[in-house]
Amino acid sequence: MVKLVVDCYGGDRGPSVNVEAAVKAVNENNDLKIVLSGKEDELKELLANYKYNIDQIEILNAIDVISCEDIPTVAIKRKTESSMVKAFDMLKNDPECGGMVSTGSTGALLTGAVLKIGRIKGIKRPAFCPLMPTIPGGFVAVCDSGANVDCDPLWLEQFAMMGNLYLQKAYNNMNARIALLNIGTEEEKGDMLRKETYQLLKNNVSLNFVGNMESRDLLSGEYDLVVCDGFAGNVLLKSTEGACLELLGLLKKAFYKNAKTKIGALLLKDEMMNIKEMMDYNNYPGAVLLGCNKTMVKSHGSSKASAIYESIKLCYKLKVSGLTDAIKDSIVIPEVEE
Amino acid sequence: MVKLVVDCYGGDRGPSVNVEAAVKAVNENNDLKIVLSGKEDELKELLANYKYNIDQIEILNAIDVISCEDIPTVAIKRKTESSMVKAFDMLKNDPECGGMVSTGSTGALLTGAVLKIGRIKGIKRPAFCPLMPTIPGGFVAVCDSGANVDCDPLWLEQFAMMGNLYLQKAYNNMNARIALLNIGTEEEKGDMLRKETYQLLKNNVSLNFVGNMESRDLLSGEYDLVVCDGFAGNVLLKSTEGACLELLGLLKKAFYKNAKTKIGALLLKDEMMNIKEMMDYNNYPGAVLLGCNKTMVKSHGSSKASAIYESIKLCYKLKVSGLTDAIKDSIVIPEVEE
Repeated sequence: MVKLVVDCYGGDRGPSVNVEAAVKAVNENNDLKIVLSGKEDELKELLANYKYNIDQIEILNAIDVISCEDIPTVAIKRKTESSMVKAFDMLKNDPECGGMVSTGSTGALLTGAVLKIGRIKGIKRPAFCPLMPTIPGGFVAVCDSGANVDCDPLWLEQFAMMGNLYLQKAYNNMNARIALLNIGTEEEKGDMLRKETYQLLKNNVSLNFVGNMESRDLLSGEYDLVVCDGFAGNVLLKSTEGACLELLGLLKKAFYKNAKTKIGALLLKDEMMNIKEMMDYNNYPGAVLLGCNKTMVKSHGSSKASAIYESIKLCYKLKVSGLTDAIKDSIVIPEVEE
Repeated sequence: MVKLVVDCYGGDRGPSVNVEAAVKAVNENNDLKIVLSGKEDELKELLANYKYNIDQIEILNAIDVISCEDIPTVAIKRKTESSMVKAFDMLKNDPECGGMVSTGSTGALLTGAVLKIGRIKGIKRPAFCPLMPTIPGGFVAVCDSGANVDCDPLWLEQFAMMGNLYLQKAYNNMNARIALLNIGTEEEKGDMLRKETYQLLKNNVSLNFVGNMESRDLLSGEYDLVVCDGFAGNVLLKSTEGACLELLGLLKKAFYKNAKTKIGALLLKDEMMNIKEMMDYNNYPGAVLLGCNKTMVKSHGSSKASAIYESIKLCYKLKVSGLTDAIKDSIVIPEVEE
């Protein structure tokens, strides 16, 4: 049986969505045990609304909460009774516990992952790898999306390798098309970081490197994994998301303009709902944090139960398929190092 | 009278759109003289289709063309008979010539600007400053959009100052809301470049610095000028543009799905056309190159005549309003330098 811990506090919607997701996940999978970290009385009350096998859900009492206003390092060190720190402690100390899902502070999660769980030996930096739905259907993974703002070419090569293994283990994609985010498609484009990374990716035989990708092609469906530093990755994802949301907002306004447009909108309702559904991150799991000794998945702060449920399923799959071991095996550690 | 040179070759649509734009511009403005750089016989033939004051349009014969495949430095140095190099030579040597518009290679334009026209004394790096339409209407300027991939905080401060003066001179915006592109809105966010730039912008009394902007808010209408390095600026603009285009493509497909959706689409036709129109870069001028001794405007390679016409109008306005002198006056050159 796989045991996962779910940090139930720190997200925008409170613990109820976490409880709902956990119940759904265990009811669909006999091999899964979930530990809910958070205020015991509140979690018990929420659980009372559901039917589930009581052997599959457990509560880890934690009376404190880390918020997005907390300074990550301070919070991880001092808020020892918080749901996130207690979840980290279980993940660290309980060999049975195979992974963690959280909707809490991204900064605190990253800090806790490094300080409590630790990097895989040889991995320079852990990196977030979220998925983005593409226009033809399917998705594209982006690594790193914000964990590392100042990067080395070697780190980016590791992001590519880790992301590649992630797509193999989670989605059985054995030949992921990997691109480097750049400001042009030609080999010589970009700054020093991009130029050096390009050569590393090109010469890495474990990768199906297809060259540079311009940011406008993110949603084209032509790439499975885009490698970038965390600053560019954040700009890429948030501007794409922002543009889509702004444009949909503009359309909505146009659709409600007058009687004629309202009828038009009514006739297009199904198609518009499909597009909205396709772009709703609540249908996708969160960002996996790659490169630490155990698997962690960060769900969006405003995740609904459906998104957390997807994150739990992903975390389970990554534990069972052995992603962490695969990353360990892929890393060649120079003898002079460490 | 203001004299501008228009490089008529190197764009995707050939010289005809440049000629059309030039004729429209001179017919609306008695104070404008345009020199068309390119193949004399072809340009003459195109001009024969129009009525205009012959004193206001002149041809500068140039038999060669710089293409996007040419290596910029090589092309600028060796293609001495190209329409772009001849335009640069006129801009450099003719004191009457106040500015240049081109749809040609961005790299070649930047190289020619630095090598032939030169940076304003004290300006570290010239930077491109294009405009992006925002959702509530109006636009936001982004500087730098791709001229400088590796940047210093001091350069970014100059981009802010030059962009600010540009908005003053071209659009009479005397209190532009200036933001720093970052991965979070808090002061301490981002990499070293962002942290140091934040302090410079905050302490620069000539700027109305409103803090960090996340990329998802580019189209919100809350900012007039966004400052960033050229790599991030390129990612920001192209992912925003790409997402909008992909989403509009998806909508188009949905609208043509069946008889019902086609009727719906017909009822929404006016509104959809408005949105498309609003987002069409052919209704906006190109990116001004800030920081050189004369004004240059780079229009999109696939510009229609309308976009080139807007670029010519902008170039005229910047010459008349004295943007270059304003930038010169704003730069405090340390005595130890140069």
